[in-house]
Amino acid sequence: MALSLPHTDDLSTSADAAHLTFWKLTVAYDGTDFYGWQVQPGLPTVQGALADAIRTITHETVLPQGSGRTDTGVHAAGQVVSFALRAPIPADRLQRALNRRLPSSIRVIDTQIALKGFHARANVVEKAYEYRIFESFGDERVCSPLMARFVWDCPTRLDVKAMQSSAAAVIGTHDFTSFAASDPDLAEREGGTPRSACRTIFAADWLHDGGLLVFRVTGSGFLHHMVRNLVGTCVEAGAGRRRADGIAVLIAARDRRLAGPTAPPQGLHLMRVVYGEGAA
Amino acid sequence: MALSLPHTDDLSTSADAAHLTFWKLTVAYDGTDFYGWQVQPGLPTVQGALADAIRTITHETVLPQGSGRTDTGVHAAGQVVSFALRAPIPADRLQRALNRRLPSSIRVIDTQIALKGFHARANVVEKAYEYRIFESFGDERVCSPLMARFVWDCPTRLDVKAMQSSAAAVIGTHDFTSFAASDPDLAEREGGTPRSACRTIFAADWLHDGGLLVFRVTGSGFLHHMVRNLVGTCVEAGAGRRRADGIAVLIAARDRRLAGPTAPPQGLHLMRVVYGEGAA
Repeated sequence: MALSLPHTDDLSTSADAAHLTFWKLTVAYDGTDFYGWQVQPGLPTVQGALADAIRTITHETVLPQGSGRTDTGVHAAGQVVSFALRAPIPADRLQRALNRRLPSSIRVIDTQIALKGFHARANVVEKAYEYRIFESFGDERVCSPLMARFVWDCPTRLDVKAMQSSAAAVIGTHDFTSFAASDPDLAEREGGTPRSACRTIFAADWLHDGGLLVFRVTGSGFLHHMVRNLVGTCVEAGAGRRRADGIAVLIAARDRRLAGPTAPPQGLHLMRVVYGEGAA
Repeated sequence: MALSLPHTDDLSTSADAAHLTFWKLTVAYDGTDFYGWQVQPGLPTVQGALADAIRTITHETVLPQGSGRTDTGVHAAGQVVSFALRAPIPADRLQRALNRRLPSSIRVIDTQIALKGFHARANVVEKAYEYRIFESFGDERVCSPLMARFVWDCPTRLDVKAMQSSAAAVIGTHDFTSFAASDPDLAEREGGTPRSACRTIFAADWLHDGGLLVFRVTGSGFLHHMVRNLVGTCVEAGAGRRRADGIAVLIAARDRRLAGPTAPPQGLHLMRVVYGEGAA
């Protein structure tokens, strides 16, 4: 009785589930050298690198599931990853073995045994992203090459108050069509079935931190490109090219063409994923 | 009367020197994606990227000279670079134009007009390097992927006192043959004529800084691989695999085979170059 490979989403209901250990990993990565999260034939991806390391260690072929995909160049400090294994193995040994085999651009920072059937894309109650901008105005503000892979080097002096006013208007439950990527991949990305563009934003703040201008946003979930489109729009307000009080109108219009450009990927960091009951 | 291209070292004595502006740039770079400092046909190098940017801006072909070469993967916070141009151009405009054209992994952080004949490899009185180690012992000490390109992720708990004892013995003027790379390229690297392996170390300290174990060393100059070989040797002492008081004997032996292994390049950062009279 072979498992279908890769493990499918209905593992928890199969007769095999009882014999499997469900794992919940917290994973950090530098997205620079990966073609995003999702496995692609012949290209380096985070999901592919994890699958390779797991197979090398356990001789089991699984497709680890992330809480969501991240695009090329996007980083993670706390992506959550799930998969199920037949082999019994202590959590600390699994983590050490994975970190020995993974490239240094991916690190498992926490390893836990989850409840049977745990899936990193289900039961998410909160995701937190951070977007980091370095303002390189004038000659004395030069972005360090050691930081350049992890920030948007923005050659403009930005008005953080205008950006905060813009951000405040996104808090609450809204249809975020105006900030969604206009790609046909959208519905599929969000879980296999077409879904509304309604999301709930719990907090959205612009602040100065360690010489950077940082956007911290938490919500129930995010559409593809949503954080980067919010950032691009806030930056236009911060640069004085857009009214800071225009975001509410923009959301109501449900028209992607009215929002600002998509901010570049390298400033974006997936910071944290929180699960409700039925998870780990 | 065309200049020989690239500019040669005797520019200052040529009739052309009077018409040239000599530039002294301070340059930072992330060495990860470069095949070191020195220009190589068909490969990305820091020197090559600077030459390309200068040519695009000024239409003059020069080979910018560094204070010394750095190897593949080695970083700089304060490499000093010299070249001479016919075109008059304000320093701030040159810096801005260079930073617009350079990849984000290289940044000019200071731009000054130097005395006629200034050459970044001559008149150096002090160079400062830093070597950064992340100790990833146990499960809770995992090296962040955002830091991995810039440190040696060393899976050992190190005794900083033993390392400091080792480092203290290198201060002063010594023949550092035991810590020199055994490559035939050595003499050529150090200025075109065979030279002794004597160097003067002014300070050498191991300390904890920001979660890292850091080696700060300043000296009159360094042989090829010398800092990395010192680090590899100190780490052996820190790991208890070598006597901490053995460095003086090691130096006296003038035998590369007795020292520790060469520490990996990505932990090494050229921090600062100081010039004496006759420079900028």
